[in-house]
Amino acid sequence: MNNIPVQDYYPDELSYCNGCGRNNEYGHHIKSYWDGNETVAHFTPKDYHIAIPGYVYGGLIASIIDCHGTGSAALAAYHAENREPDSLPAFRFVTASLQIDYLKPTPLGVELELRGKIIEVKGRKVISEITVSANGEVTARGKVVAVQMPENMV
Amino acid sequence: MNNIPVQDYYPDELSYCNGCGRNNEYGHHIKSYWDGNETVAHFTPKDYHIAIPGYVYGGLIASIIDCHGTGSAALAAYHAENREPDSLPAFRFVTASLQIDYLKPTPLGVELELRGKIIEVKGRKVISEITVSANGEVTARGKVVAVQMPENMV
Repeated sequence: MNNIPVQDYYPDELSYCNGCGRNNEYGHHIKSYWDGNETVAHFTPKDYHIAIPGYVYGGLIASIIDCHGTGSAALAAYHAENREPDSLPAFRFVTASLQIDYLKPTPLGVELELRGKIIEVKGRKVISEITVSANGEVTARGKVVAVQMPENMV
Repeated sequence: MNNIPVQDYYPDELSYCNGCGRNNEYGHHIKSYWDGNETVAHFTPKDYHIAIPGYVYGGLIASIIDCHGTGSAALAAYHAENREPDSLPAFRFVTASLQIDYLKPTPLGVELELRGKIIEVKGRKVISEITVSANGEVTARGKVVAVQMPENMV
């Protein structure tokens, strides 16, 4: 596992994302790494990320799947070009679509593990499948279609 | 348009949701109403709900679609039983699955309108389609499968 997350290589002006931007004071700061052929991130929800007592809010689960999905897409894009995330140009993906299945309630108060599998890298698009686990059990599963950010977007 | 949102009728102990709970100090406080045959809610993202400069974070969009979807499900369930949200027992739905298509970037700095159409009410399940609009243009579309919360969940 490389010990620098891909988000640390996002250009400074593109690092304000509420989910994964290192420059967002109020954000979740999701950090995505390779772990073998999978990608991994960890996140411990705050008390106020509650849905109903004892369980994590579905919108927060969607948010961390989203950001680990775009982070995984960037990792996969560097890999497809056989170069490291510290090389240029930097990859920055945005989400085209998100599908989340909430398989069971996600308990609040424990660290969650996100694991990503890259399903497809094609042109400017990367599709990944992301699971969220709590206490070793998968509680939610997502599919993220990410596309490389258009140059004219900023 | 009824001037009391369905979330105001959720039982007090089930009103801490980060997306729509009136008792969550740090939440989004989504409020869902009937407007004719559709449901409606409004939300103005904060500056820190940013994705990349100028645009709203996809996780926030997923979150508000999620909560307007479960709110719309509750409204539809009361309607199916031909009673008002101030009658008992109260309905409280949770999300089984969420599909979001990000059609175009959502501009930051304006009020967003969420509109919901009820697609199906069947047993304990309600399916809705939710759009998010900014400046009158639909920027994201979601499908929310909501199920009535199991009694043993709290």
